[in-house]
Amino acid sequence: MRWRVRLLDCESNGKETEMKILVVGASGVIGSAVVAELGKRHDIVAAGRSASVRLDISDGASIKAAYEKIGRLDAVVVAAGSVKFAPLAQMHAADYEVGLMNKLMGQVNLVLIGRDYVREGGSFTLTSGILDSEFIRGGTSASMVNGGLNTFVMAAAIEMPRGQRINIVSPGVVAESQDDYESDFRGFETVPAARVARAFAKSVEGAQTGQVYRVV
Amino acid sequence: MRWRVRLLDCESNGKETEMKILVVGASGVIGSAVVAELGKRHDIVAAGRSASVRLDISDGASIKAAYEKIGRLDAVVVAAGSVKFAPLAQMHAADYEVGLMNKLMGQVNLVLIGRDYVREGGSFTLTSGILDSEFIRGGTSASMVNGGLNTFVMAAAIEMPRGQRINIVSPGVVAESQDDYESDFRGFETVPAARVARAFAKSVEGAQTGQVYRVV
Repeated sequence: MRWRVRLLDCESNGKETEMKILVVGASGVIGSAVVAELGKRHDIVAAGRSASVRLDISDGASIKAAYEKIGRLDAVVVAAGSVKFAPLAQMHAADYEVGLMNKLMGQVNLVLIGRDYVREGGSFTLTSGILDSEFIRGGTSASMVNGGLNTFVMAAAIEMPRGQRINIVSPGVVAESQDDYESDFRGFETVPAARVARAFAKSVEGAQTGQVYRVV
Repeated sequence: MRWRVRLLDCESNGKETEMKILVVGASGVIGSAVVAELGKRHDIVAAGRSASVRLDISDGASIKAAYEKIGRLDAVVVAAGSVKFAPLAQMHAADYEVGLMNKLMGQVNLVLIGRDYVREGGSFTLTSGILDSEFIRGGTSASMVNGGLNTFVMAAAIEMPRGQRINIVSPGVVAESQDDYESDFRGFETVPAARVARAFAKSVEGAQTGQVYRVV
């Protein structure tokens, strides 16, 4: 009897309610899989450099303008961000700043600015990647950025305003991108983008916060 | 008999040889404990904003000038770096850039520039901190920076030139600093600076690379 009551509670807490979800990087391999998965049940606003809502994550003014245009949101998903890949011998301070200012601070800034536009109890879901815990030649900047994103998310979760949640998905080598990366990731298992997308659904439609969802 | 031979091998591989070690942040609580520990057996060059060798880790030109002045080194230890502590509600992009440009890129730049001055098989040892895996109010920037430093070190280890090694020490709340931080770290165990210093000795005088030494 107690269990029955609990299940009903879950359902009435919005599990069946359509959400308005901003997906940044919606035209990428992961972003389009997220749109396909969450689009079955929710209203998706696609944003990116070439999407209907124009947004450059490295530019705070561009982020602010996009949020103003879109209005109230239930959730934000970010599957975007550039880092420089090059052998350590060729990497200098300026090369690391590319990833710090684009993938790292771009995603963080979508949270810092977005927290005022996302409803009470809404969520943010960011994207890091397997180079947070496995390492390849030329990957020092990606590893730095992914590690920093994961710990930012875990730390931010305990201070988010108005019950907002924040999680991050750390995908392995995505099968659909494998041809582009195979020689750098020799021997790594691949994961279909559709399976990565389900981790975003777990974050957006579930109730956890401060989680790093590793999908490998 | 086989064991006896191994032990002799270890001793002849430089265990007893005095090294020339640059300690950046030598006047800090951790840095001075490192100087006390490694100074028993090695020649220490103390550097920092108020040390005999002036060095501002946020300034690449200052790092380069210090290395030029010091010349050939066997090891570099960095126990320096600033980040901004403030509630997430008050943190904006520029506040995170303090830690990214000082503690994170300052330490990384000491490696990028220093690799040309450190001998074959020499080592770098950086410093992150417990906020890489435990989280406090106001600590989102420190968590981001410490996480990024740990993964940079693990990734860089597989690409260091000329057999150079790189490790990082992640200390808990240092007992000697406890009065400054106690209200932020209520309930955290403390660790004496002398015990943190031994992890730096393990890195500098041992043979491991790509390690995160957690001292809590």
